[in-house]
Amino acid sequence: MNIGIVGLGLIGGSLGLALRSHGHTVLGVSRQSHTCQRAIARGAVDDAGLSLNLMQSAEVVFLCTPLAAMQATVVELVPHLTADTVLTDVGSVKGWVVKTIAPLWSNFVGGHPMAGTAESGIEAALPDLFSNAPYVLTPTETTPAGAVQLVEALVRPLQTRIYRCRPDDHDRAVAWISHLPVMTSASLIAACIGEADPAVLELACGLASSGFRDTSRVGGGNPELGLMMAQYNQVALIRSLHAYRDTLNQMIAHIEQSDWRSLEALLKQTQQARPEFLQ
Amino acid sequence: MNIGIVGLGLIGGSLGLALRSHGHTVLGVSRQSHTCQRAIARGAVDDAGLSLNLMQSAEVVFLCTPLAAMQATVVELVPHLTADTVLTDVGSVKGWVVKTIAPLWSNFVGGHPMAGTAESGIEAALPDLFSNAPYVLTPTETTPAGAVQLVEALVRPLQTRIYRCRPDDHDRAVAWISHLPVMTSASLIAACIGEADPAVLELACGLASSGFRDTSRVGGGNPELGLMMAQYNQVALIRSLHAYRDTLNQMIAHIEQSDWRSLEALLKQTQQARPEFLQ
Repeated sequence: MNIGIVGLGLIGGSLGLALRSHGHTVLGVSRQSHTCQRAIARGAVDDAGLSLNLMQSAEVVFLCTPLAAMQATVVELVPHLTADTVLTDVGSVKGWVVKTIAPLWSNFVGGHPMAGTAESGIEAALPDLFSNAPYVLTPTETTPAGAVQLVEALVRPLQTRIYRCRPDDHDRAVAWISHLPVMTSASLIAACIGEADPAVLELACGLASSGFRDTSRVGGGNPELGLMMAQYNQVALIRSLHAYRDTLNQMIAHIEQSDWRSLEALLKQTQQARPEFLQ
Repeated sequence: MNIGIVGLGLIGGSLGLALRSHGHTVLGVSRQSHTCQRAIARGAVDDAGLSLNLMQSAEVVFLCTPLAAMQATVVELVPHLTADTVLTDVGSVKGWVVKTIAPLWSNFVGGHPMAGTAESGIEAALPDLFSNAPYVLTPTETTPAGAVQLVEALVRPLQTRIYRCRPDDHDRAVAWISHLPVMTSASLIAACIGEADPAVLELACGLASSGFRDTSRVGGGNPELGLMMAQYNQVALIRSLHAYRDTLNQMIAHIEQSDWRSLEALLKQTQQARPEFLQ
């Protein structure tokens, strides 16, 4: 099948590598000619170029640009598509994307492959990035069934675990397990550096080890990513943050009131619940 | 030198292995005769038994029991010590320990080797557990200088990084980098499982990956440990929790008000600050 990929970063490049290894022909578009050259050299695409005109022979186009560029890219892309071209994206929020893109191209299905590395860009692309990773598809009532089936048929052989859900349910779920953790983790770092006694702060820096390392990792990551989560998944994130603050207040009250029985019950509950999230 | 170890768990057993490998004679006491046998078999002690009478020939005694057992153990131990025996402990909070133990034995210096594994007990003991780990000593104005020097001379050759500070400064520092992360991480899990829509909760469980795994790890750990932190380091932990809640409220306000500039500044600050804690 002829596949188009717009945006040849980590995700677009990895999709290209994976889909080509499954026998598809992959055409890529990037804004940077250097990226096109590297994508060809790395075997992520059969051909690549700067013009969206390349997408006219694609039967399915994966939109792999940053969220902020999606709307303008699709407006520019639409004149190059044939009527039955299926468009899908890889954005990490789905409510906003589906609301924005579906009106521009009806044969569109939202998607979110939940995979990544600490690196970004075409050089970081990996052929097995999606192996065993969740791949969420978010059709709505108006999404053509054939579009969903086609995208699913393309990405299932990459050893992905397919989920289908409503865009808003996706956004609520990732608010809990991806976006909320970034904010609670960043708040942890920000609170620690607010320590007013320099001797205590220096000691804290010296004593921090694996517990702090793990708990602070996503909060000390790329600020652009955290900002994007808050901007594009604002409603679901605020909902999760409010629930988190309520839980935190409850925990603080237990500790202030020396209510060890309640604190222990809460900690037993979290110990028991965590493995459910990590199967 | 003749070293005594009271409590032959992960820390006591590892200290025995390490100190014996540096040529010291190690005598151990445990409440379980099976543990004594295993400590001898593993080479963690030269001899071990159930009676604190074994400690009478020790020049330095490491108190390695759980915090809750320390006071009663020292009351029972004191009649077996000679006047110049140095007593030290390995408890993970220091204000409460020093306040409780120093009046019972003046030749006492509080200590905290910051090392551990996910396992516990004598079978988990490792000779190099303390290698490159911080070892905090918390002398006060009334601690004999010789006691501090002696303990430091014993543990420095184990490749530890020695810190000396006041007991309360230790407790404030570990509240930030060890005890607060447990509570924020447990609150994250507790908030997530409060999701009322079963479809969203199931999706969240399916989609959780490394970000959630790391951020939730210490909050899904042994409830006894979290409880101990709150009970014995209550004041410093509440202080850190209040500061954390203030920071969280600030972050929520930025997101609610779509104040992306302030949110970005905060996330840039946390990205920049984190490496200071992980040198």
